[in-house]
Amino acid sequence: MQKLLATVQQIFDEEKFIFEPHELYEPIDYTLRLGGKRIRPLLLMAANQMFGGNDEQVRYAAIGIETFHNFTLLHDDLMDKSPLRRGKPTVYRKWDENTAILSGDTMFAMAYQYFLRQPHEQLQQILSCFTRTAIEVCEGQQYDMNFEKRDDVTLDEYTEMIRLKTAVLLAGALKIGALYAQAPAQDIEHIYQFGIHLGLAFQLQDDLLDAYGDVAVFGKQTGQDIRDNKKTYLYLQALQSATNEVKQELKQIFESTPQDSEPKVKRVLEIYDAANTRQQVEKAINSEFSAAQRSLDEIQLPEEKKAPLQNIMSTLLGRKK
Amino acid sequence: MQKLLATVQQIFDEEKFIFEPHELYEPIDYTLRLGGKRIRPLLLMAANQMFGGNDEQVRYAAIGIETFHNFTLLHDDLMDKSPLRRGKPTVYRKWDENTAILSGDTMFAMAYQYFLRQPHEQLQQILSCFTRTAIEVCEGQQYDMNFEKRDDVTLDEYTEMIRLKTAVLLAGALKIGALYAQAPAQDIEHIYQFGIHLGLAFQLQDDLLDAYGDVAVFGKQTGQDIRDNKKTYLYLQALQSATNEVKQELKQIFESTPQDSEPKVKRVLEIYDAANTRQQVEKAINSEFSAAQRSLDEIQLPEEKKAPLQNIMSTLLGRKK
Repeated sequence: MQKLLATVQQIFDEEKFIFEPHELYEPIDYTLRLGGKRIRPLLLMAANQMFGGNDEQVRYAAIGIETFHNFTLLHDDLMDKSPLRRGKPTVYRKWDENTAILSGDTMFAMAYQYFLRQPHEQLQQILSCFTRTAIEVCEGQQYDMNFEKRDDVTLDEYTEMIRLKTAVLLAGALKIGALYAQAPAQDIEHIYQFGIHLGLAFQLQDDLLDAYGDVAVFGKQTGQDIRDNKKTYLYLQALQSATNEVKQELKQIFESTPQDSEPKVKRVLEIYDAANTRQQVEKAINSEFSAAQRSLDEIQLPEEKKAPLQNIMSTLLGRKK
Repeated sequence: MQKLLATVQQIFDEEKFIFEPHELYEPIDYTLRLGGKRIRPLLLMAANQMFGGNDEQVRYAAIGIETFHNFTLLHDDLMDKSPLRRGKPTVYRKWDENTAILSGDTMFAMAYQYFLRQPHEQLQQILSCFTRTAIEVCEGQQYDMNFEKRDDVTLDEYTEMIRLKTAVLLAGALKIGALYAQAPAQDIEHIYQFGIHLGLAFQLQDDLLDAYGDVAVFGKQTGQDIRDNKKTYLYLQALQSATNEVKQELKQIFESTPQDSEPKVKRVLEIYDAANTRQQVEKAINSEFSAAQRSLDEIQLPEEKKAPLQNIMSTLLGRKK
């Protein structure tokens, strides 16, 4: 995985993102060089290699998928009015709202331009997969915004939202990598399902770590979702398990924004603990992890071919097979 | 042209634009059903027919190009804080800013989905043309925003801006129509150039009509660009021809926003008249019109095949060959 990640990093280092007018492209270059884990290009290239592809074949597809992902972050940060991304000012803060809108739009078009840069027999399938994924990511963001205004969101609805907002793009990246390598149809379906379950496990774990993570490992303050009144899987799980009285209390807490948020975070974690929330979310993560593993196992390739993806999954989810 | 326009209208009437979540798709349906002149799908289908294509082949490409165009209007209206579009509230006013951002993003992806709906041998060329056009339209919008903050924009820079912001999409629509019909390479280049000159003439005429148009024909109040301090081709042309003294006066007027704008509009038109602005802009329009005509003449097809495009050009520019 480290070698592949270095390749991905090198591809980005070698690519030029600034053109004229520079007012349009500087925020794009800034965004694409902020770093991040580069998970999507990593998955795309790993899937491609697994099915016998080669780095050069998916060089621009790797840039394309990450450019799309960064475009969604850029617009999401504007919609959510987030001040920081990866510890740096977000584009709409560093520049302005119009710059965030237009540079984002341009990145979306650039993503297609990267995919189109190399001819490929399966181009229609590749771009159809990418486009369907893009639309689903937008739908996921809309459900996320809808859910902020609702107080009756179910766990199933939440799962469907994170499937659209997060999982389909990991799955799409894997599928596109496999399509470039002309993998067999049933394996393409398996790798897509692997990505969906991996994505769900990854997002649920992100929810869990926000409340229970080791600050040193997680890299950000815990309890932020609680402070932000974000109705995560934990919140919905606790609501489902709690008594009517506690349910009312939890709903009320998630409508408040006290000056000193520490008592609020503490009380919510007490409620989560009393409702066994952590264990239940871990169960859900395990279930997605196992489903991902089964999908990977279904792929008709020797184990050593699957080792890199197995490795990425272990690293992302912090656990072994 | 009327028959083709009816076909375009029918294609939109038959298409469904509302899916779940409806909060995302209702603004899209609203935007795509606001009407407008449907010039881009009309040009795409006309070019396709001219080179022997058929309506069914470009049905979804026609929807795709208009969906893209409407996406740019949706985001432009938000960036420009325009309250109305075609006499109706703009999306960011009727809903909110986040809806305008996200529904717009989704429309951009939908545009690709329409293009991808039918397989085509030349798909890579078609989508490369579309994508390059999309990027250029974004660049044009950025130049437009840059120019608002500058007071030294030249006529050449302005022309390049409207080429990117307006003309390339008309040219791209024509080229895509021709690509679907597998037109010869040199004719594809001619039809593209035809579109560029047609687009420039069309935009310059729009600038001219805003100042000198017949309200009954033009459909909106004249002098609006002057009220909005919009530095159009007329303004830049007048600046270039005027004495230093008048130049200063004109610049000052374009920094003011008086309660009663009528004296302002009147004085600017006096300056334009004294500088022969109208005649000079008409000369520029004629020059683009002639260049468009030459490009159309270069195409290796009998005159009767070209009649529909000739007709569309005449209607758009209100003049005969």
